[in-house]
Amino acid sequence: MRFLPLPFASVRINAGFWAKRQEVNGSTTVPAGHDQLEQAGAFENFRSAARRGTGQYHGPVYEDGEVYKWLEAVAWELARRPRAQLATWVLGTVPLVAAAQDDDGYLNTFVQVAAKGSGRFADLAFNHEIFNVGALAQAAVALARTGAGAGLLDVARRAASQINETFGPGKAPGTCGHPLIEMALVELSRHTGDRTYLELSRHLIAQRGKRVLSSGRFGPSYFSDRVPVREATSLEGHAVRALYLACGATDLATETDDEQLLAAVKGQWASTVSSKAYITGGLGARWDGEAFGDAYELPPDRAYCETCAAVASVQWAWRLLLKTGDADYAELIERTLYNGVLPGVSLSGDRFFYVNTLRLRAEAAQAGDDAEPPGPANGRRPWFATSCCPTNLMRMIASLHHYFVSGGPEGVQLHQYASMSIDARAVHGPSRLEVETNYPWDGEVCVRLGEALGRPWELALRVPQWAGGASLRVNGRAAGPEPVPGTYTRLFRNWEQGDEVVLELPVKPRRSRPSPEVDAVRGCVALEMGPFVYCLEQHDQPARTPVDELWLGGGSLRAAARPDLLGGITVIKANGVVRRSTGTAPLYKTTTGEETVALSNSAPAARADDAGVSSELTAVPYYAWANRGPAAMRVWVPEQ
Amino acid sequence: MRFLPLPFASVRINAGFWAKRQEVNGSTTVPAGHDQLEQAGAFENFRSAARRGTGQYHGPVYEDGEVYKWLEAVAWELARRPRAQLATWVLGTVPLVAAAQDDDGYLNTFVQVAAKGSGRFADLAFNHEIFNVGALAQAAVALARTGAGAGLLDVARRAASQINETFGPGKAPGTCGHPLIEMALVELSRHTGDRTYLELSRHLIAQRGKRVLSSGRFGPSYFSDRVPVREATSLEGHAVRALYLACGATDLATETDDEQLLAAVKGQWASTVSSKAYITGGLGARWDGEAFGDAYELPPDRAYCETCAAVASVQWAWRLLLKTGDADYAELIERTLYNGVLPGVSLSGDRFFYVNTLRLRAEAAQAGDDAEPPGPANGRRPWFATSCCPTNLMRMIASLHHYFVSGGPEGVQLHQYASMSIDARAVHGPSRLEVETNYPWDGEVCVRLGEALGRPWELALRVPQWAGGASLRVNGRAAGPEPVPGTYTRLFRNWEQGDEVVLELPVKPRRSRPSPEVDAVRGCVALEMGPFVYCLEQHDQPARTPVDELWLGGGSLRAAARPDLLGGITVIKANGVVRRSTGTAPLYKTTTGEETVALSNSAPAARADDAGVSSELTAVPYYAWANRGPAAMRVWVPEQ
Repeated sequence: MRFLPLPFASVRINAGFWAKRQEVNGSTTVPAGHDQLEQAGAFENFRSAARRGTGQYHGPVYEDGEVYKWLEAVAWELARRPRAQLATWVLGTVPLVAAAQDDDGYLNTFVQVAAKGSGRFADLAFNHEIFNVGALAQAAVALARTGAGAGLLDVARRAASQINETFGPGKAPGTCGHPLIEMALVELSRHTGDRTYLELSRHLIAQRGKRVLSSGRFGPSYFSDRVPVREATSLEGHAVRALYLACGATDLATETDDEQLLAAVKGQWASTVSSKAYITGGLGARWDGEAFGDAYELPPDRAYCETCAAVASVQWAWRLLLKTGDADYAELIERTLYNGVLPGVSLSGDRFFYVNTLRLRAEAAQAGDDAEPPGPANGRRPWFATSCCPTNLMRMIASLHHYFVSGGPEGVQLHQYASMSIDARAVHGPSRLEVETNYPWDGEVCVRLGEALGRPWELALRVPQWAGGASLRVNGRAAGPEPVPGTYTRLFRNWEQGDEVVLELPVKPRRSRPSPEVDAVRGCVALEMGPFVYCLEQHDQPARTPVDELWLGGGSLRAAARPDLLGGITVIKANGVVRRSTGTAPLYKTTTGEETVALSNSAPAARADDAGVSSELTAVPYYAWANRGPAAMRVWVPEQ
Repeated sequence: MRFLPLPFASVRINAGFWAKRQEVNGSTTVPAGHDQLEQAGAFENFRSAARRGTGQYHGPVYEDGEVYKWLEAVAWELARRPRAQLATWVLGTVPLVAAAQDDDGYLNTFVQVAAKGSGRFADLAFNHEIFNVGALAQAAVALARTGAGAGLLDVARRAASQINETFGPGKAPGTCGHPLIEMALVELSRHTGDRTYLELSRHLIAQRGKRVLSSGRFGPSYFSDRVPVREATSLEGHAVRALYLACGATDLATETDDEQLLAAVKGQWASTVSSKAYITGGLGARWDGEAFGDAYELPPDRAYCETCAAVASVQWAWRLLLKTGDADYAELIERTLYNGVLPGVSLSGDRFFYVNTLRLRAEAAQAGDDAEPPGPANGRRPWFATSCCPTNLMRMIASLHHYFVSGGPEGVQLHQYASMSIDARAVHGPSRLEVETNYPWDGEVCVRLGEALGRPWELALRVPQWAGGASLRVNGRAAGPEPVPGTYTRLFRNWEQGDEVVLELPVKPRRSRPSPEVDAVRGCVALEMGPFVYCLEQHDQPARTPVDELWLGGGSLRAAARPDLLGGITVIKANGVVRRSTGTAPLYKTTTGEETVALSNSAPAARADDAGVSSELTAVPYYAWANRGPAAMRVWVPEQ
């Protein structure tokens, strides 16, 4: 690995934007997760299994996995800011899970409680038995690593061994319809030193592409089973499945120095990010099958962009970043955290989006959508029948600081910026650093060195791609090298205690435009500032300025601090034009070159292409939308 | 009614475009329907039900309905061009259906054969029991009207009475999850003179909007059950359901002179056509729920546009046309027949599209799509597990001439053009007309009057909206009134035998552009000529001219006859530009006004917005695409 992760407790976000989000996550989201899972019967499933009787099973087949993901969030949160309630939950849940496990290590309450008859592994494509063991292993490693308790580790090891006995090398062919265990096994192997799990991961990854998975109308590509991982050139099918598999394959390539596999996943990443990614970092365009679309198929209004896919994308990019040291991965992590993951939860921390659209029309916002319960037209919801997104999001936010800094023999790398204390001794001698910044609202990042190492080492600071004109000062004086956007600025010095490095990133409003291959937003502009993608939400526009009928005009973009709004944000003001739509005018017009004729049902009438009325538009960061009731919203705005 | 339909045998298409399509439909499509339904076990279901035993049921719950729709096609085809095989099928099928009927009139082989336990009407939302009776009634009326046999009429009447006994006025509340029976009952009432069926239709339509239908994740709007029909302002939810219901509501309004209901359905039509219709006439944008999207949500690549929705749209517009006499409805019928219905079947007549996309990218065309079996990436298919589209299409094409002409006290109206013989005596004295034309390839339509009536009457000729510059000659001399596009030109004369009217419609290539509210094709152009929407298919482009990378240039459009191509078509030639895409270049670019920075994973590189290479493009009528193997295709092309 080029970079090494720091131990979990080595980084602490002290203040600012993400400190607030972590605090809300810990005080509201994680407890909400407990209550919702209890209400859904998820814990009751374990109690039923522990009783070894038959009974009623609650929730979808992957409900165990939701408990494990929530438990992982509890683990990280307990380490971040210990609270009695969190410890109580760990102490209550771990024995409950352990008690549910069968003697041979098998553990899956759906089959144990409700589907004894059909038996174990009766439907590999959909029953999520192996997936659930993966989530169990992730929670167990989190608990062990944070010192919250190693009790679950034995349960996870026994469950993983049971999978190994059943589907390991030389055993029955097959793998899980939903990947996840692949990366969990690598982590379990790293933590325990037992390479059996690594070999099982390798084996399960090698199963894919043999087209053994297919169920009902879902063919192999839905399960990432159309081509072998090392032959795939882009992600396809169900987005979260594909992304988890890519995480596992990257872990495997890293642990086994498999350069061919690494080249394959790097290629898949480059292709996916350059042809199937929304500007928010959101992945998975299609509602149908929750799937990646074709290259450049990126509709804003029907963007699926499952919150889980954004979480998984951060996990994948982080693995590639550590392995390669390439700043592009950190760039995508930043874009995705602010605009793909964070929009999945309300500012209050107890309402969620499963689907993250980039456009909601006024009519849909008002009417809601009874055909698509998790859809954005219904606003943020307290929970979902399939609750993967909230539980995934809470474990990511609780462990967020983990993704901000890395270290290694070369020195220390800052990938994301926040006011934080860093202790890099575990990977790089005695380096301690304090970062102070009001990022992302302000681009000044001040890094103070806490102690001297007695020999030169490298402090690497990532300069985002949007930060043209960035500058650097060391101890108050301009210093080289000149920061180059999209790279790490590397300062190799014999650092003294109290040395101060200031990176100045120009946080200014910007217009961003799509590549012309993207049909769905041709001629449109998105506003951005710093790492934030902005959107126009109806709440912020003047009267008679419907978001659905707005066009962006020329002229400068103005930033304005609004501490009163949405927890404190900076808005972007822009010149806009309202081009009134006239409902029943023709949808299409035709011309032979000599004349223009209206098609369809009405006489030609004024429509939106007539001259419009000027208006001042106000854009807010996309993550903060849908916190004030139903309203039209759009990220991409046609340009006048 | 403003216009009256002619008896089925009163119009015969003799030659030309639609004669060929009808011939292929009769000789290939209808027989293929028989074989496919037999293979699917659809007839076996009736045999099992007739045996009154339990047994294996085959196909989806609406499989009976597919048999009825096929039988309706057989009826129309038997009248159009009698063949022994068709008569044999009628003689074999009608007694089989009759034998399956229970003593009390109930008839639904799924429940009779496979779901006896759960009983009748156990799942109104999805079991399609009432829907199937509607399709039965439609087939029965078709058989009776064409003189092919009245035997099924009694079966249908008894089945309808059983529905009336169960769900009629004063009986159990409820209606079918899938509308259809509403219009079938009106037709049954018209044919038999029994107003019980009309009242049942009225009653069932009044059930809707009470939100009694909802199932699993599908809420009331999926079933057109969110608001009462007479309060709805636009169609929503499952497209085919909504359109069938609209047909029934229009029939009801017509038969009962319900002006309020008529105003409601007219409003729904205007709103739907001006905000939710594809340029092809295709309806229903969403894959998810096979549903209408929001207003202006019309993605070309993910267009669902179920073939059945196009058929239903023609049926609805036809009802509104007869009632109101408004040429807009005939205009949409023409657009939809050529570009929404016909693309659903191959030129060979034995391969079908369920989904009618407006864009298929090269990669998808090559790879296919195992996650979406009926999807366009898999090309035309011989049949579908849900076979509504092929059976619907075959009954429409077999009865197509029915939609071309109407009559009434005022005279005769020609809505669509083809070489045809018309006998309008049933509705307008002794008028006989012969139409000769090479329409739609050529715009000259010659109408010869077959006999004198001895008093003046009106010949009305529809002038399509695109036909600016149309002209009219009577007996070789220019005649007024000047044809106005989008209206009927009305000639009120004391017609003599042998009088000749020639309408000249300028069939020239045109560029058509979307209203700016349609995000998904902003900046794009579609080519049209006459009633045809054209598309660019990869097969017709020069080497190194990928359809995915084409832009339309300026300059004139050229029409060129190609009798050798795709059964004989006229192509459109246009100037194009290839703007090469470079796979891994950034998807989004950002600027602060001072500079442009590439976002995403790669160094700035040449992308499609660089100057391109000129090329001559060839467009073919959209209906003819996908007859030459997998290839990229697009209707909308970005304009240089």
